Amino acid sequence: MTAEIHIALVHYPVLNKTGDIVATAVTNLDIHDNARSARTFDVASYHIITPLDAQVELVSRILTHWRDGFGARRVPNRVDAMNLVQVQRSLDDAVAAIVGERELRPVLVATAARRVGPTVGYAALRARMRAEDGPFLLLFGTGYGLAPEVIEAADLVLEPIGDPEEWNHLSVRAAVAITLDRLCGAGR
Amino acid sequence: MTAEIHIALVHYPVLNKTGDIVATAVTNLDIHDNARSARTFDVASYHIITPLDAQVELVSRILTHWRDGFGARRVPNRVDAMNLVQVQRSLDDAVAAIVGERELRPVLVATAARRVGPTVGYAALRARMRAEDGPFLLLFGTGYGLAPEVIEAADLVLEPIGDPEEWNHLSVRAAVAITLDRLCGAGR
Repeated sequence: MTAEIHIALVHYPVLNKTGDIVATAVTNLDIHDNARSARTFDVASYHIITPLDAQVELVSRILTHWRDGFGARRVPNRVDAMNLVQVQRSLDDAVAAIVGERELRPVLVATAARRVGPTVGYAALRARMRAEDGPFLLLFGTGYGLAPEVIEAADLVLEPIGDPEEWNHLSVRAAVAITLDRLCGAGR
Repeated sequence: MTAEIHIALVHYPVLNKTGDIVATAVTNLDIHDNARSARTFDVASYHIITPLDAQVELVSRILTHWRDGFGARRVPNRVDAMNLVQVQRSLDDAVAAIVGERELRPVLVATAARRVGPTVGYAALRARMRAEDGPFLLLFGTGYGLAPEVIEAADLVLEPIGDPEEWNHLSVRAAVAITLDRLCGAGR
C-alpha cells in the first residue's frame, strides 16, 4: 500500500528557453496521457494549472467531451482517467483542493531535468510513501521547467530522471510516466 | 554497459477496437516523444512502421523539418533525437535495416498491455541485455495492440506494465518511456 499521491502539471509560472517566466499553452495530449498514467498508478487527482481564462475554458470543454460527451461513449475506459483531472488557476488552488476539509497540507515534491540544489532519490521517496499516509503532490513543469519560486516553495526536489550532464530532454508526458512508475509501480 | 537496443512503433499490422487488423495513422507526438525517450536511454534507432505511402511521406517531411529545417534551428537538441528515427514500410524492413552488413538478426521482443501467453519479466530481460551484445528490437503496437502474427513472430513477449486485470490503458508514449526506463534506466 502506498500513500495518497496527487500530480500537477504547471503551465504558470514556468521558464521559457531564455529563462523568462511565462505561461505555456495546455496541450491536449498532456491531459490524456498524464490522466491515463495517473489512473494506471492509482494517483488520487491530476491538477492542470493555468491562470488563463481561455485555457481554463478549453480544458473544461475537453473534460466534458471525454467524461459525458461523444468521447465517453466512444472510449468508455477513458472516463475513469479523465475523472481524475481538475483545472486550477494556481498551485495554491490545487493545494487547497487537496486539503479540502482536512487540516493536512500535502508534501510538495518538485521535479526538474537539471540540478537545482539538494534532491531526494526515487528509492528514498518511494520508501517514505510507503511509511507515511501523505498526501504528496508531485509538481511537473511545462516549457523549460518549473520557475525557481515553485522549486523553492517545494518541500523536496526529486533527482532528475536522466543524467543532467548528458542529453536529458524527455517529454513531460514521458517524465510523468517514468516518475509514477518509479515511485508507485509494481514489479520493482 | 547494456546491449544494442532498437525500438519500433508498429502502425500495421495492429488491432482495432473490434479486433480487426488495421493500419493506424502516425501521430506527430509519437515521433517526438519516443525519439526523445530513445535518445535519453541510448537506444540505437527508432523505426516507425507504416505501409501507407501518404504516411511515409508525412513522417519524412516531419523528420526533414526537425533535422535540417526551421525546427532544427529553433530546438537544436531535438536534432539528436530525430536523427534516431527511420520510417519503414514493414517490420521485415526494420529488421533488415538493423541487420545491415552483419549476419546478426535482432532478438524480437513484443510488448502487450494484456496477457498473450508466456512472458519475460523486466528484471530477467534487463539482466540478459547486460550479458549479451544484442541487438534487441522492442516492438510497440498502436491502436489496440500488435496483431497476433507479430506477437507469434517475436522471440519474447514482455510482461504488461500495469496489472492486466485492472485498468491498464497507458498511452504508447508512456509505455515506451516506462519500458526503456525499466530496461535501460540508471538509478535502479
